[in-house]
Amino acid sequence: MKKPLILVTNDDGITAQGIRALVEVASTLGDVVVVAPDSPQSAMGHAITIDRPIRLRPASVFDNIEAYECSGTPVDCVKLAKNVIFKDRTIDLCVSGINHGSNASINIIYSGTMSAAMEASLESIPSIGFSLLDYSFSANFEAGKPFVRRIMDYVMAHGMEHGSLLSVNIPNLPEAEIKGIRVCRQADARWVEEYSEAIDPRGQRYYWLTGKFVNEDLGNDTDIWALDNGYISVVPSHHDLTNYRAVSLMKDLEFQRV
Amino acid sequence: MKKPLILVTNDDGITAQGIRALVEVASTLGDVVVVAPDSPQSAMGHAITIDRPIRLRPASVFDNIEAYECSGTPVDCVKLAKNVIFKDRTIDLCVSGINHGSNASINIIYSGTMSAAMEASLESIPSIGFSLLDYSFSANFEAGKPFVRRIMDYVMAHGMEHGSLLSVNIPNLPEAEIKGIRVCRQADARWVEEYSEAIDPRGQRYYWLTGKFVNEDLGNDTDIWALDNGYISVVPSHHDLTNYRAVSLMKDLEFQRV
Repeated sequence: MKKPLILVTNDDGITAQGIRALVEVASTLGDVVVVAPDSPQSAMGHAITIDRPIRLRPASVFDNIEAYECSGTPVDCVKLAKNVIFKDRTIDLCVSGINHGSNASINIIYSGTMSAAMEASLESIPSIGFSLLDYSFSANFEAGKPFVRRIMDYVMAHGMEHGSLLSVNIPNLPEAEIKGIRVCRQADARWVEEYSEAIDPRGQRYYWLTGKFVNEDLGNDTDIWALDNGYISVVPSHHDLTNYRAVSLMKDLEFQRV
Repeated sequence: MKKPLILVTNDDGITAQGIRALVEVASTLGDVVVVAPDSPQSAMGHAITIDRPIRLRPASVFDNIEAYECSGTPVDCVKLAKNVIFKDRTIDLCVSGINHGSNASINIIYSGTMSAAMEASLESIPSIGFSLLDYSFSANFEAGKPFVRRIMDYVMAHGMEHGSLLSVNIPNLPEAEIKGIRVCRQADARWVEEYSEAIDPRGQRYYWLTGKFVNEDLGNDTDIWALDNGYISVVPSHHDLTNYRAVSLMKDLEFQRV
């Protein structure tokens, strides 16, 4: 039987630790090809490169794994994989990450990791974004690996409906302390931000973003609840941003010229 | 009575035609302050600047209107407006655009215009993103102005529920041919892409994104239907990407360590 083709990408860049962990797990399931940014692209959201050329180069990073580094964003990586590298081949699964840091709750909209996964889902490629709640370069990705494998197995076995993707977050715990897997909704939490303000060596003012994450959504069906309680959270997501409730409520804004 | 404070931003940059049209309409409704990118930031999605400092400078662009240009993304503009410029003042409305080009359907996830509006909605600021279906610099924004005004009036009068925002697209028609306003869902359309491939003067290969928009979602309740039929489309949107249907369907992925 032909092995499935698995595209691996991320937003921390092709030399991050997290993508190496994902490549290791994916290699046990299929033929892996990596297409990832050549520099860190965290917080790039769903940005794409339209105003300048993009570079795509073979990269020697992983043993015996075909890999390419791309000068663009995570979404550009997926578009290039689909339209250039695998123009005539079907990508069976796209996995993005493992991100260094949380993509739970509102973080999904800022996340390059999750936007790459969403871009694959738009092409009807089953896709999953993985994140570990540890920002450091030396984060321990080992504990989560059996669960990453389990979730990839599930998606390979069940497929995914058009336009859907999974956002998976892994608590920063030893494997034995991870309680299990919960399928959740995205918590309605937010960032409360402050800008650090300073003067550069040339006397010009600049700002640098800082902030803290605040969760006032206390439901026990959210990703934040799952993570706080030792579970891996899985949020099935999609690209339809329509607020259907508001569609019904706002019909009085409609207007027909007579 | 104190006039409402209206924040105006965009993704085409502070010198674009479209933001001028929006400033003109907003000025008839309240005190306007502009915070917009100092360079074009189309297709930046929800990108934010976290790895380098951001500049914010007063800009002399509009007569008698306080304005700032920012070196960051559209979302950075809104964050700086909220956390630096108006740290101690309430922003009553945020309007973004008028974008040169469509942000209907899937375009919303790539759009810096809409991401700026979404960022404001996360701060519970009522917000609206406006787009005109004409990419050119010299697009005619006059025809849409009465409708832009009407929609802003509606939002000022009715408010907006937390986390909700409006995505407004205006067909490229003379005013008399615009049939009215429809409140819609986001059509499930997509881009079919190709990369233009070429060799640079130094002999290195590069890729440039091109593509065409394909709509196979034939419902008459979508933004694409409204626009194709001469209406202005209004899609109430939000930041919750959870696919609730899939949450119910995927409970068998859950797992509890015993």
